[in-house]
Parts: sequence; C-alpha cells; structure tokens
Amino acid sequence: MIKKGLLIVISGPSGAGKGTICKKLLDANSNIKASVSATTRAPRVGEVDGKNYFFLSKENFEELLSLDEFLEYAEVYDNYYGTPKKYVLENLNSGNDVLLEIDIAGALQIKEKFKEGVFVFILPPSMEELKKRIVGRGTESEADIKKRYGAALEEISQVIKYDYAVINDDLDRALADVEAILRAEGCRVNRLYEDIQSRF
Amino acid sequence: MIKKGLLIVISGPSGAGKGTICKKLLDANSNIKASVSATTRAPRVGEVDGKNYFFLSKENFEELLSLDEFLEYAEVYDNYYGTPKKYVLENLNSGNDVLLEIDIAGALQIKEKFKEGVFVFILPPSMEELKKRIVGRGTESEADIKKRYGAALEEISQVIKYDYAVINDDLDRALADVEAILRAEGCRVNRLYEDIQSRF
Repeated sequence: MIKKGLLIVISGPSGAGKGTICKKLLDANSNIKASVSATTRAPRVGEVDGKNYFFLSKENFEELLSLDEFLEYAEVYDNYYGTPKKYVLENLNSGNDVLLEIDIAGALQIKEKFKEGVFVFILPPSMEELKKRIVGRGTESEADIKKRYGAALEEISQVIKYDYAVINDDLDRALADVEAILRAEGCRVNRLYEDIQSRF
Repeated sequence: MIKKGLLIVISGPSGAGKGTICKKLLDANSNIKASVSATTRAPRVGEVDGKNYFFLSKENFEELLSLDEFLEYAEVYDNYYGTPKKYVLENLNSGNDVLLEIDIAGALQIKEKFKEGVFVFILPPSMEELKKRIVGRGTESEADIKKRYGAALEEISQVIKYDYAVINDDLDRALADVEAILRAEGCRVNRLYEDIQSRF
C-alpha cells in the first residue's frame, strides 16, 4: 500500500521569508514536489511549460474551470491563474508530498475543497523585524513600504484560519518546524486509519 | 511570556514498545517531565513519595476527587490511582511538557477534561510482530498469551479516538515521530494565537 502524500499549503506576508523556507524545503526533501500553477498569460522568455507554469488558452482554462479541475483560481489583469487538481492529486497518490506557496485568498479556497491539506502560515518574529525586512529590500518608495507594511499586518490577522504558524526568527529552526509539521501530520490517525486497519 | 508546555498522553497495547519510547523521550528531552500518579496503596520498598507516586490516604484522595483535582482516576482492587491536575498544570505553566503513559480508559477521561492534550497511540508494526513480542517475554502461559493478544487487538481498535498513531517498527524512527509530533503541536495556531497577538 502506497502511503498518500500530504498537500502542504504555505502562506505568509511579504517579509516573512516563506519563499526561502519553501526553496530550502524542496532542496532538502526530494519527496516534496512544488505545485505547478496554470495560467493564461503568455510565457516569458525562458519559462518552460509544465515546469514554471502550465500555459493554457483562455478557452482551455475556462473549460477546466467548468469541470471543477482547479483547487483554487484567480483572475488578475484579464489573465487566469489557478492550481490544477490533477497535478497535485497525481503526486499525492504516488506518495509524494506537494508544496504550494500561495496567497491567503488562494489558501482559503483550497481549504474548502481539500480540507486534508496542511495549512501553514509563516510569520516574521516581530513588527519591528517585519518593517526592517520590508525596508531592507531597498527597492520601494516610502509610500510603497507603508502600504506593504499595512497589507502585511492585515494578512497576519488571518493566521487564525490556518492550522500551524511558524515564526521565522531563525531560518533553520523555521525549516525544522515545517519538517516536523509534515512528519507529525503523517502520523495523524485519520490519515493512517486505513493503513492501521489493513495491518490488524 | 512563557510558552505553555504540552501534555502528551501515550497509550498502546502491551508489546507496542510504549514504555521504551517514553523512557527514551524523557532521557533525551530535559524539558519533558513524567507525570506522577497519586495512589492510596502502600509504598513498596524503595518507592519515593512524589517521585514514584504521590502516596495519599483514602480520605485525602477522596477529598481531592470531590474537588475535581484529578485529570483521571480509577479504582483497582480497593485502591485508587489517579493523575493529579496540580502537578501537571504547574509543569505546563512553567513551560515544561508533561508525559503521561496511561491506559486507554485513563486517556479518554483526560481527553474529556483536558482537550488541549496531545493523544498518541503507539502500535506494533503488525499482528505477527505483536504476537512475537508478547510471546517473547517468555513469562506467560499459552492461555495468558492468548488473553493478552486478544486484549491488545481490542485496544488497537480504540486508536481512532487518538490524535496520532506511531507505528513502532523501528525505535529511533518511532521516537523521532513522537518528537516531531510535539514540535508540530507547539506550532498549532490555536496554541500560539495569544503569542502572535502579543507580537503584532
């Protein structure tokens, strides 16, 4: 019996460091696959279909949408973006875990359709640190920084809708937390029940 | 702010190896304290009050019982045994985790009174291995072995009432599973919510 993989959904405000955690998680665990989104926007130079995105026509995307083939989707500036169910389920069924780094709106859509998912929110250690990290990018105006900071606080207020919160005050510790969450979720009785019944 | 500790409740049939896992867990993690039971039975030679048990008079035990001062209790051959709330809560409040190895009836009583507990069921890897381990003790008659084996299967059917199941096919792996469960539970949003609110 192949043990089904876990879908781990990671969100968090900009400045929380979720991108780095996800990258490290994928690098260190070959059984975790990054989810690949579908989009109707045109490929950019160097982007590979099926790797960076699944590039779809608008008609194709809408057909899949009508067939409930997305775990979540959004329309942004006249283009669709979405998470195809098929890619995720195929990986889970073959025993891989699937990692999905996504904004809160997307995560909450997934939670409705796929409640077996593991929902993790990455947090910066403090407001001061959050501000420092946003400023530290050095690419934005004062007004943009203020806006981004306000948006981050608003996002953090949504943490209660997630299963787990990882406070990223130390990258290695945060990574170990996420890995422990995956390992522990693999021991959840409701996930193991069939396996246990088959053993006894 | 001191982060509150976790109460981890471990059960499992005889032959699952829960005793060894608990001992290793305590040896390897100084922040995990073993719960100390109270009893009305007389101390045996070498037993230390407050370490092996809290030794109480029957009157004293019944008074505490009437004050709802036990997380669970049982009466066995005219003696009471129980888990005093005070010892557990004091440790949790000072940031220690508390480990309680207990039978299923006790665990289910605790689950009603203290739903924040983490309930872990330790399983042998298979029926064959279970039988082997029960026989392997070499101290019991055929009839006793049969009885013990039947009781173990009956106990395993209760696993669904627990949060986590750890299949003990390899001691180090099982121990790492339990440690991951504790680490992950420490990241549960409902446990961290106050801490997060105080940060942002």
